[in-house]
Amino acid sequence: MLIGRSIENIKIGDKASIARTISESDIYLYAGITGDMNPAHINEETSKNGLFKGRIAHGMLPAGLISAVLGNYLPGPGSIYLGQELKFVAPVRIGDTITAEVEVINLIKNKIVKLKTSCINQNGDMVIEGIATILPPKK
Amino acid sequence: MLIGRSIENIKIGDKASIARTISESDIYLYAGITGDMNPAHINEETSKNGLFKGRIAHGMLPAGLISAVLGNYLPGPGSIYLGQELKFVAPVRIGDTITAEVEVINLIKNKIVKLKTSCINQNGDMVIEGIATILPPKK
Amino acid sequence: MLIGRSIENIKIGDKASIARTISESDIYLYAGITGDMNPAHINEETSKNGLFKGRIAHGMLPAGLISAVLGNYLPGPGSIYLGQELKFVAPVRIGDTITAEVEVINLIKNKIVKLKTSCINQNGDMVIEGIATILPPKK
Amino acid sequence: MLIGRSIENIKIGDKASIARTISESDIYLYAGITGDMNPAHINEETSKNGLFKGRIAHGMLPAGLISAVLGNYLPGPGSIYLGQELKFVAPVRIGDTITAEVEVINLIKNKIVKLKTSCINQNGDMVIEGIATILPPKK
Repeated sequence: MLIGRSIENIKIGDKASIARTISESDIYLYAGITGDMNPAHINEETSKNGLFKGRIAHGMLPAGLISAVLGNYLPGPGSIYLGQELKFVAPVRIGDTITAEVEVINLIKNKIVKLKTSCINQNGDMVIEGIATILPPKK
Repeated sequence: MLIGRSIENIKIGDKASIARTISESDIYLYAGITGDMNPAHINEETSKNGLFKGRIAHGMLPAGLISAVLGNYLPGPGSIYLGQELKFVAPVRIGDTITAEVEVINLIKNKIVKLKTSCINQNGDMVIEGIATILPPKK
Repeated sequence: MLIGRSIENIKIGDKASIARTISESDIYLYAGITGDMNPAHINEETSKNGLFKGRIAHGMLPAGLISAVLGNYLPGPGSIYLGQELKFVAPVRIGDTITAEVEVINLIKNKIVKLKTSCINQNGDMVIEGIATILPPKK
Repeated sequence: MLIGRSIENIKIGDKASIARTISESDIYLYAGITGDMNPAHINEETSKNGLFKGRIAHGMLPAGLISAVLGNYLPGPGSIYLGQELKFVAPVRIGDTITAEVEVINLIKNKIVKLKTSCINQNGDMVIEGIATILPPKK
């Protein structure tokens, strides 16, 4: 699939999702490519006695799964990502399985798509919520 | 620095930044850890004739530099990242050098910090703008 | 899509493909995870005067794209990969864009699927050809 | 060793091997460089109740160890990899230690070498078997 859905093929309520178990290596590679060496993510010694009782993923790492759903499935390739609002509501730990789901909630001027974006862990807890704004590909 | 600045040590106008040249390997690793294999990022053949005339970084990748500044410098370690609004206003290409800058714009109830967040390329063009919401560490 | 196509939903001639520009970092990471430090892949000095006039990808690296198509699209998740025959017919260089295509060529005893598997570069040259044997998921 | 063994220095029965404990990071990096995000490899939640009771390596990942032995030891650098037949006979899990062994079984027209290729886990179970076809370096 080289071109995703145009606005004519998107309707309110459409959904898509992907899921992934977040590995220690995901967190370390993300630290490397962003330079975010916050001890909360890469120092088990200082983290194990802290607020979260161990290292946690960077909040923006599982947020990337949202981008993956948007860019690959709904609307899919050819989309232009205009904006994203994110609320980080619970930590993601090594080994958590995160499902990123997007759901179309608004079509603006038959041109722009608004989607509710959610990252949920294996226990059903919301970890990130937000809203994406996308310009889908032309048909 | 294992603990960042508490709210008492933060004032409106405080700034911090980091910069990084975005490599092809950054983009490919980011694709791998998010599963985002959108051809816009990993297929030069389909991208070179497209809107951006070549592969571009995932928008959320340079956005990670913002998180890196917040979590490491201002306010720094111990901060809780509550939320982030992002507008993706221009593409980031392989080899672009992105400066992520954060600037304190509001202190809410002597507890929460709002920062303007900007990613700017080597030509001075804004590529991502937004607002971060942070709970700084206790003193 | 958590479960791929069962044998009842597969017919001779069905096709699927993915494409990717092979980066230098793909080759170096592959070298790292397999331990294959053959100078043909990681030593530009000895390679530039050799048969291929530069470093080339490990043959088994683009072959992995075949596995990606089989496991994700045709038949998709839940498939059991029974076997693969590979002929490496031309080298893959850094920056080549490889399309891995699979095409159903036989259904054996209404249980096993045989697929022709091809990796083709941006110039239309076959680089790997072969046959995959797959047990698709039950419906 | 920059040049491997020429056909004159290879005889039927010659063997070589390497071994490696397959890590979670090996599997995640392999998923990233091939784009193979099949849940069997990266989703512990859907995998733990499945056929294999947890995530398994991509079959082509330990197969890369065979290529590593061929290209580095027998025949070694300068070899041209012409073909590989693979049968995936048992799963490889995170933490399994895989020994990839190759054994010369035929010399064709004093030019081409056929080797039996085996990947065996720490319990002595065959996980991949096959045949490699190699053009060794000239002396």
